[in-house]
Amino acid sequence: MSAPRSHAAADVLVVPAGTTAADAVAAAGLPQSGPKAIVVVKDSSGRLRDLTWVPAQDSEITPVSMDSPDGLSVLRHSAAHVLAQAVQDIFPEAKLGIGPPIENGFYYDFDVTKPFQPDDLGKLEKRMQEIVKAGQTFRRREYSSLDEAKAELAHEPYKLELVDIKGDVDDSEVMEVGGGELTHYDNLDKDGNRVWGDLCRGPHLPSTRFIPAFKLMRSAAAYWRGSEKNPQLQRIYGTAWQSRDELKAYLNRLAEAERRDHRKLGAELDLFSFPEEIGSGLAVFHPKGGVIKREMEDYVRARHIEEGFQYVGTPHITKEGVFHTSGHLPYYADTMFPPMHMEGADYYLKAMNCPMHNLIFRSRGRSYRELPMRLFEFGSVYRYEKSGVVHGLTRVRGLTQDDSHSYVTAEDAPGEIKHLLNFVLSLLRDFGLDDYYLELSTRDPKSDKFIGSDEQWEVATKVLEDVATESGLELVADPGGAAFYGPKISVQVKDAIGRTWQMSTIQYDFNQPARFGLEYQAADGTRQEPVMIHSAKFGSIERFFGVLVEHYAGAFPAWLAPIQVVGIPIRDDHADYLQEFVTLLRKEGLRAEVDFSTDRMQKKIRTAQQQKIPFMAIAGDDDVNGGTVSFRYRDGSQRNNMPLAEAVAHVAEIVRSRTNIGPSAA
Amino acid sequence: MSAPRSHAAADVLVVPAGTTAADAVAAAGLPQSGPKAIVVVKDSSGRLRDLTWVPAQDSEITPVSMDSPDGLSVLRHSAAHVLAQAVQDIFPEAKLGIGPPIENGFYYDFDVTKPFQPDDLGKLEKRMQEIVKAGQTFRRREYSSLDEAKAELAHEPYKLELVDIKGDVDDSEVMEVGGGELTHYDNLDKDGNRVWGDLCRGPHLPSTRFIPAFKLMRSAAAYWRGSEKNPQLQRIYGTAWQSRDELKAYLNRLAEAERRDHRKLGAELDLFSFPEEIGSGLAVFHPKGGVIKREMEDYVRARHIEEGFQYVGTPHITKEGVFHTSGHLPYYADTMFPPMHMEGADYYLKAMNCPMHNLIFRSRGRSYRELPMRLFEFGSVYRYEKSGVVHGLTRVRGLTQDDSHSYVTAEDAPGEIKHLLNFVLSLLRDFGLDDYYLELSTRDPKSDKFIGSDEQWEVATKVLEDVATESGLELVADPGGAAFYGPKISVQVKDAIGRTWQMSTIQYDFNQPARFGLEYQAADGTRQEPVMIHSAKFGSIERFFGVLVEHYAGAFPAWLAPIQVVGIPIRDDHADYLQEFVTLLRKEGLRAEVDFSTDRMQKKIRTAQQQKIPFMAIAGDDDVNGGTVSFRYRDGSQRNNMPLAEAVAHVAEIVRSRTNIGPSAA
Repeated sequence: MSAPRSHAAADVLVVPAGTTAADAVAAAGLPQSGPKAIVVVKDSSGRLRDLTWVPAQDSEITPVSMDSPDGLSVLRHSAAHVLAQAVQDIFPEAKLGIGPPIENGFYYDFDVTKPFQPDDLGKLEKRMQEIVKAGQTFRRREYSSLDEAKAELAHEPYKLELVDIKGDVDDSEVMEVGGGELTHYDNLDKDGNRVWGDLCRGPHLPSTRFIPAFKLMRSAAAYWRGSEKNPQLQRIYGTAWQSRDELKAYLNRLAEAERRDHRKLGAELDLFSFPEEIGSGLAVFHPKGGVIKREMEDYVRARHIEEGFQYVGTPHITKEGVFHTSGHLPYYADTMFPPMHMEGADYYLKAMNCPMHNLIFRSRGRSYRELPMRLFEFGSVYRYEKSGVVHGLTRVRGLTQDDSHSYVTAEDAPGEIKHLLNFVLSLLRDFGLDDYYLELSTRDPKSDKFIGSDEQWEVATKVLEDVATESGLELVADPGGAAFYGPKISVQVKDAIGRTWQMSTIQYDFNQPARFGLEYQAADGTRQEPVMIHSAKFGSIERFFGVLVEHYAGAFPAWLAPIQVVGIPIRDDHADYLQEFVTLLRKEGLRAEVDFSTDRMQKKIRTAQQQKIPFMAIAGDDDVNGGTVSFRYRDGSQRNNMPLAEAVAHVAEIVRSRTNIGPSAA
Repeated sequence: MSAPRSHAAADVLVVPAGTTAADAVAAAGLPQSGPKAIVVVKDSSGRLRDLTWVPAQDSEITPVSMDSPDGLSVLRHSAAHVLAQAVQDIFPEAKLGIGPPIENGFYYDFDVTKPFQPDDLGKLEKRMQEIVKAGQTFRRREYSSLDEAKAELAHEPYKLELVDIKGDVDDSEVMEVGGGELTHYDNLDKDGNRVWGDLCRGPHLPSTRFIPAFKLMRSAAAYWRGSEKNPQLQRIYGTAWQSRDELKAYLNRLAEAERRDHRKLGAELDLFSFPEEIGSGLAVFHPKGGVIKREMEDYVRARHIEEGFQYVGTPHITKEGVFHTSGHLPYYADTMFPPMHMEGADYYLKAMNCPMHNLIFRSRGRSYRELPMRLFEFGSVYRYEKSGVVHGLTRVRGLTQDDSHSYVTAEDAPGEIKHLLNFVLSLLRDFGLDDYYLELSTRDPKSDKFIGSDEQWEVATKVLEDVATESGLELVADPGGAAFYGPKISVQVKDAIGRTWQMSTIQYDFNQPARFGLEYQAADGTRQEPVMIHSAKFGSIERFFGVLVEHYAGAFPAWLAPIQVVGIPIRDDHADYLQEFVTLLRKEGLRAEVDFSTDRMQKKIRTAQQQKIPFMAIAGDDDVNGGTVSFRYRDGSQRNNMPLAEAVAHVAEIVRSRTNIGPSAA
């Protein structure tokens, strides 16, 4: 198993006692500027150190370049300090909250009398540029006592609070403190004078000059330490990169992602909505979205049946007992909707389907001849996601899993997992998703969340790992990411713009069969316990739908497109002819319609382009007289005067092939 | 509109003052024995009177024959008296509860020291036969005062209670009292001596001799006046008919219904179950039931799309607001599952889909060009049915409606209703249901449950009635049976053994469009309100499934059968050859398998018959050598040595045609 993006490990250097890390880096001839500049070092304990670090004895270090994950994190943390200095320069009354690096950038929180305005960000960026150009150095300074820190920070109430809780806080929450020492970073001008400073555990870039490219993105309100009970601060988000090109590429990716945002396209293409009246995270599929959803459902159901699965159906609610039996309750009550109390029982909306499939397995005696027994359904489950994380279709509260459970003998488990993995990958390819790696989620041996013996976990993990390895796909470890009942392989898919999404999952379960008392009669007449393999192919139809919208930028391949062909008459009197063509298409089960509106032809073409309809079938006098139509595709290319029967076959073939036509970004 | 079964109205007779109704009947030469015997008469106010009735002035009456609904009701009421007399003869300590006629029979409740045993019913039947043969006459007697009644009934505590509440009770609840007078019916022997009697409003048969055929069915516990707070009595159920043949036919129908009971067949054929762990009325579809459910869903979805409907999808839960907007809440809260309180809101499991379709309609501006806009979905709804009425798949708590809403202009409403009715009827025919009548459910003008103006109700009712009449189908009135928002046509379907089921519904709604503020832009640019037409074709998939199981007695036509073809080898070494045939069938999308068990051929045939598999494909040496198979059908008929390609086409054609083969009762 390897990391998702491997970075060649830099050579280890030795820093002689009493010299700086910077000296060793310089002596080794490593880059001191540009994207590959060494900005910090990692000591033998794995701790990042400033280049100014002077070890007390000869020490091995690994140089860290700016373009590495650690390097980018240091760059962004330093950029956050520059932002804070700029804010206090322009808004002297601003009090400092915290300012950590985050994915792709950083933020800093401030207590200010009024929220920042959009043009404030421009002013701040300008001031930050001046600070960067000034080449201020970052100097680390240890406080000798808490009192010393408090005296210096008397004017910064939030920092004072951090000093008080030092030692009690999780590093990941507050980067300012931690690591055993209480330290401060001063910014010094060219003359060595302190111009600004911040309580901080570091490390930092050697100087502000090392910040090659940054941009402030937006500001938003945020509670101090994330709690509504605390004062509301103003947070400024920024991004910072190892080069101007990288910044530009990132901003382009953002713009591309925004253009593809499934929430925006979902509204523009009239696919779905989230009516406030119904509630957060509960999707309503409109007619055009309903077509795509139906094609997805039909496809995946047919594929399941081909692969030997049996379609079952179970209720959306149940008395709580089955979730106690499965082990989901009481531990997962927080992720479920609250119970409905009725006739002396608590009924829950189901958050998973497995217990109900177990009841089907258990509904009568089973023989080894029936195994593998593969049950699947479209299981609509409801999960309580916090309102802050609900996001379009990709993070919802109501979702429909294409959920299956394979009951197999322990010996057949590896074969079934291989079968499932091949099934899943071929399915993803049919949706144009052919760039993926696997993640193997295992238990955290220190956590008591996971049930079952060490041996059971080892056997199950080995089975999954062997199948994953055999597939030849990249395999990444995800320690502690398993479900409580067993380890998991998940397929991590890269979309058209390189973003990774977790889609399909395959889970090995040795717990639920025992908890539900599942058994089958083996060939030798003994009663044996089956292994249960959970698998979702789309994951959830909603989430897969959302990812597809973004992957295709709304320009769905013809087989999924809500309208596959729109007839566009050159003059109004060509419309009836196109209607005849549409009738031929519909007889083949194709989705076609004529644009009968009073718009002019060019407007109709624009409308069809906006709707991202795969085929425009245009007809004028030539076509009517010759019994043909002329196609215009989403990419603007054309094929003129195709005989009607051939035109129908052309569309039918593209639909059947599930290929996309024209550029995916229309 | 007419009654479902019309009975020719008997001629009106005049009973001269001071003479009995019996005299007039005799004078008119009407039957006084046999199934058509006149047993009571109806006076000009519609009240039923004994034949011994003597009007104070010349009165018009309508004779009532025993085989009419009223006549059967009187017969059964008299039989209940005979039962009560028999019980008090054999169990002298028994105290009387009430004893009304019910559909197909009667019951009587008794306070006895221990429940009746099965052989008690035999003894009681024997005693009843003696009473019938004795030809006791029923004599009506009016009490002159409550005190007189109480004195006579001092030993019957339940009857005393009825006397006390006289006037407060609903006739339908307690038949013993009502009609303004407090009356008693005595049974007199041949010599005119009173042998038994009961508080009762009557009327009754002239004598016990008129009871041609009866049978006691079973006994069960029942609370006095239906309340758990009252004492528990023992109820004996019986049936009584106008002839021995009718009794026999009824008992045959019961046996046939029991043989077809979908709950029993559902378990035998492994179609579905109701696990106690999940809760009452919540169906789980097993793999074989899942096949049927999928065929039903695929069929009805494809038909909807053909008919111009658009498939949408909405969540199973919602904040309560939309049900207040629609008008379902607060009035229908009792039929909904209790709410889930979350984030300051009450979420309900949806009990109907219409509000959500309204939100889709309202999600953007609509033009008259988009109408009729027809939305449909498989809407899984949850309704709280009392545990006593939950029954298999036909009365459940979780059901999936194939629910549609057509939004149309008021002018187009009649056309759309006609369209829906034709759609519904053609759908029912495809499931072998071709005997039906229509019911028109209207409001009860005296109830405040119904919303909207008189004119709106009149217009809507007229539209439905006109379409129903035009269909040429029998139309029956159901006053007061409408939904609160508008009148309804329902299709009442007769199954293979003549039982009637309410299936599809079409409802005209002029209320919800206004309540949701739905509007469209008309051709003249004005904003108009659409009419909304609710329709469910299957009604609910669960209920329709249950009815189909009973209609087909589990022997589904091939297109619905979970397994369509089973290969049965004459010797084991013919099995591989049949597997090749199965592979050919599967390539055509047919559901086929070989019976590879170690059973002998005759046992395999019996198994296939029990599983009601439409085609048994048998192969022996002849078939293997000749490249053929031999079919054995459910009715035992055979077709031998059919070439494989022809055999595949034969099965495919039967499946495609949706016809049934072999007797529906296998």
